[in-house]
Amino acid sequence: MFPESLKDDFPMKPRITVITLGVDDLARALRFYRDGLGLRTEGIIGHEFDHGAVAFFDLQAGLKLALWPRQSIAQETGMPLGGPSATELMVAHNVSSRAEVDAVMAQAENAGAVIVKPPHDTFWGGYAGYFQDPDQHLWEIAWNAAWVIDD
Amino acid sequence: MFPESLKDDFPMKPRITVITLGVDDLARALRFYRDGLGLRTEGIIGHEFDHGAVAFFDLQAGLKLALWPRQSIAQETGMPLGGPSATELMVAHNVSSRAEVDAVMAQAENAGAVIVKPPHDTFWGGYAGYFQDPDQHLWEIAWNAAWVIDD
Repeated sequence: MFPESLKDDFPMKPRITVITLGVDDLARALRFYRDGLGLRTEGIIGHEFDHGAVAFFDLQAGLKLALWPRQSIAQETGMPLGGPSATELMVAHNVSSRAEVDAVMAQAENAGAVIVKPPHDTFWGGYAGYFQDPDQHLWEIAWNAAWVIDD
Repeated sequence: MFPESLKDDFPMKPRITVITLGVDDLARALRFYRDGLGLRTEGIIGHEFDHGAVAFFDLQAGLKLALWPRQSIAQETGMPLGGPSATELMVAHNVSSRAEVDAVMAQAENAGAVIVKPPHDTFWGGYAGYFQDPDQHLWEIAWNAAWVIDD
């Protein structure tokens, strides 16, 4: 199925540079991520382009989070506009301790997140909680003893 | 809305550690990402747990991609099982040149991706193409002159 000649030299590198979440209300999503979760951003840019308004957040080196209206994603890609679907994806934020899981979950709740599952011992031996952002995207806040996090 | 006392000390750090994509057929998704896109993985692990079967791929430092059945996400979080919704998210893979965009898009097509929009000059001055994985998640392969990629 895949040409043998290409197999030794896959062009794609193991790298994701931007995670874009489709939102229904960009200003509301910006408030949640910037004011509620405390992530840094220059705010909404790209107003000069049709369907260009977007907000970027710098995460660890080489990775950004973007918020872009679902309407714009549909327009730019030609895909049909879909509604929220909680099981499409989950974004995880690993931390260094159980106490940090509790603290981040409390922060998210204060910011207006819907707590889907409070912090609990997980089947894989860790400790995690789930919340949804205002556009129903699932986040997992997790502590995993086997995964050392550099803060 | 957010307690003043917490504002100076947001517990959440600007970090995403795992991007989990909900899939309908884990073996099919594994073949696409491992054999088609060439991303490295130990394969499907976690069979010993109910709803635990999952595949992880190591990306750049501190970031993993995970494939987990939508059914398992629904079960674990208690959320209703949703169908695919293309405008929920977009994952971007930035590269260093226009030629690399073309090469990765060709690789994805050979791997069985649906080409949503072939490589083209973008409104923001770059060059990008879009494809969907077998579970309809959107990927953008992009070259942006202003964004230097360390390979």
